Amino acid sequence: MTTRDAVRARGRRPGGEDTRSAIIDAARKSFAAKGYDKTSLRGIAREAGVDPALVHHYFDGKAALFAETLDVPVNPAELIERITTGDVDRLGWRIVETFLGVWEPAERRDALVALVRSSMTSEEAARMLREFLGREVFGRIAASTGAPDPQLRGALAASQMIGLVVARYVIKVPALAEATREQLVERIGPVLQHHLVDRSPGPE
Amino acid sequence: MTTRDAVRARGRRPGGEDTRSAIIDAARKSFAAKGYDKTSLRGIAREAGVDPALVHHYFDGKAALFAETLDVPVNPAELIERITTGDVDRLGWRIVETFLGVWEPAERRDALVALVRSSMTSEEAARMLREFLGREVFGRIAASTGAPDPQLRGALAASQMIGLVVARYVIKVPALAEATREQLVERIGPVLQHHLVDRSPGPE
Repeated sequence: MTTRDAVRARGRRPGGEDTRSAIIDAARKSFAAKGYDKTSLRGIAREAGVDPALVHHYFDGKAALFAETLDVPVNPAELIERITTGDVDRLGWRIVETFLGVWEPAERRDALVALVRSSMTSEEAARMLREFLGREVFGRIAASTGAPDPQLRGALAASQMIGLVVARYVIKVPALAEATREQLVERIGPVLQHHLVDRSPGPE
Repeated sequence: MTTRDAVRARGRRPGGEDTRSAIIDAARKSFAAKGYDKTSLRGIAREAGVDPALVHHYFDGKAALFAETLDVPVNPAELIERITTGDVDRLGWRIVETFLGVWEPAERRDALVALVRSSMTSEEAARMLREFLGREVFGRIAASTGAPDPQLRGALAASQMIGLVVARYVIKVPALAEATREQLVERIGPVLQHHLVDRSPGPE
């Protein structure tokens, strides 16, 4: 029985928390079935049996709704705004700092690990993650700098962050699992800076 | 029926290809059950029912045997030797070049992807990969430079390479899946150089 069915079975009109849950439920199905890019808020409203205006009432856009389907109560658009506002010379460090700030609490980390893990074995999950990261996260960050090759740069930055998640939380390489947040910001900040901003391909 | 059983069932003495297969079979089981570090060549010989000298006859050490269990006919010790010999100022680039040279052929790439994928869902596979990378690959490379914090440096370098494999071959982020080898060497070489060798934590 889905949340929506449950709402109906109890004979209540969708409203408040029930409507919210029905929308998240419909969104989760749609992202999994169609991927991130092809999912629309209108389609989610239809699937949830609610007015599209209600979706906009409860959620600040598609990225925020996507985060809700992962049980992560953050608004990606706000985080990206925070990351891309400020000195571009510190962009790489801000990304690592923001990322770890959001994801280190255990309950969010579990959601992140579950997402990365399922993207390794399910083409649907891989597509969701790939499209979401490209469209809402690293695509936006890379585009904000004006550096050439934003797509390749964004993808390279994503590769370092995905590798950090896998090595620290999943494979649990000891030195990385034990590293402090400050150490990671200090060591990985310059890597994201290099991938996203530096004009020359390397230090030589 | 295992390879060893097959050898016996056919009434032949272990020898040549049969012995070789029996050893690989026993090694695969032992690495999965005990992890990389606690597996010994002596224990593998016992499990395979052959003289330990035969294991040394067929395989150039534990790392080479581990590679065989992954169906990857490379000798890690030789690759590491090749990587760590030469100008330390080019170490990062040599790693990416060597890594891609070995792993890009489709049949080896499949073995690599299978290993990374299984390490995401199986603690046994994660432990094998973690111990192998730490002991035989990034541990040795990091130790070769004389830079401080070799364990953290090796783990950070591993995180970038794991992220590259996941983003390019598994999640298939378009810009990375389509990048040429030369582009990857140019962009990721300096990152490994930074993680492994650079004294200052960043460009500032």
